[in-house]
Amino acid sequence: MESLFNHIERFVKLDGKIKTQIRSISKVKILEKGTVLIKQNQANVKSTYFVVDGCIRSYYTDDNAKEHTVQFSVKDNWISDYMSLYTDERASLTIECISDVTLIEASIFDIEEIFKKFPLLETYHRSNLQMNLVKLNRRILNLLHLSANERYKLFLEYYKGLDQFALNLHIASYLGITQQSLSRIRASKV
Amino acid sequence: MESLFNHIERFVKLDGKIKTQIRSISKVKILEKGTVLIKQNQANVKSTYFVVDGCIRSYYTDDNAKEHTVQFSVKDNWISDYMSLYTDERASLTIECISDVTLIEASIFDIEEIFKKFPLLETYHRSNLQMNLVKLNRRILNLLHLSANERYKLFLEYYKGLDQFALNLHIASYLGITQQSLSRIRASKV
Repeated sequence: MESLFNHIERFVKLDGKIKTQIRSISKVKILEKGTVLIKQNQANVKSTYFVVDGCIRSYYTDDNAKEHTVQFSVKDNWISDYMSLYTDERASLTIECISDVTLIEASIFDIEEIFKKFPLLETYHRSNLQMNLVKLNRRILNLLHLSANERYKLFLEYYKGLDQFALNLHIASYLGITQQSLSRIRASKV
Repeated sequence: MESLFNHIERFVKLDGKIKTQIRSISKVKILEKGTVLIKQNQANVKSTYFVVDGCIRSYYTDDNAKEHTVQFSVKDNWISDYMSLYTDERASLTIECISDVTLIEASIFDIEEIFKKFPLLETYHRSNLQMNLVKLNRRILNLLHLSANERYKLFLEYYKGLDQFALNLHIASYLGITQQSLSRIRASKV
């Protein structure tokens, strides 16, 4: 739980009482590579996940069985299918552990309840959402105006060490390019 | 101010005292088409804007003077350069009125202060951020997996009536396609 407490304390100060409450709604899980947390099209997405160790990927599978990676989540980041979590729609994405993963799972209901008792935690969540908004705006801007080569360079800077977990297929589908293009970009760097 | 109060009341209940406080940090402005609210590369982005009437566009201009539209904001939506507002970096985007616009401007400092007095408003802001996260995730997913034609169809559904404000250039650069491609897509619909 320490890594989650440290993450929260980047934004707000926690005391013993709040930590006890956070512990009470947190499930620590150690999962094997390949574990699926949310399956595209399932109903009732109610959980969000904080990565303590390892890597989780969210992706959409289209009608031609092609995968499109929306997000990678490494240590100290939250992940879920927000399009479903915040709207009650069926899951748009599959959320899958692409390495052995230690994570903390919390339900959206418990989180909403804890905000009522400790508004401080809503401030943390709000600050975290704002940082997410920044990241997603940058991602959209990069998809719109950067070349595949430039997007790959930024990806390597931003996701340092992700190479150990992510397959070519995952990275290419995050960048919105084919695996062949990714291989060409990588080859040109040697 | 009524449209902002109504928007907030979709999420939380307001009383007279809170409304007075919101009024005290809100500047209502009536602006002409072409007014620039934030200029790419400027320092000190501190304001966010709620559109009461009209349409505002945010865009990035690249080194070749090509514009890339990140967001359109119509009635009852907030807009700013969040990449700058929440990080203190220089503006990445230009925010411009593409019609005559009535808006409410608020400073991020005043907003942070009002959250301390009225945590209810932080709940509104948090809920609004969550909905934004949903929209941005959908946009990324659409950019990754939909054809230009499909993106244009979704755009028309989502931004009903935007045609009256937005130029071909704006829409094409939002969809990440050339104006020629947009014209072809439009012609094929006739």
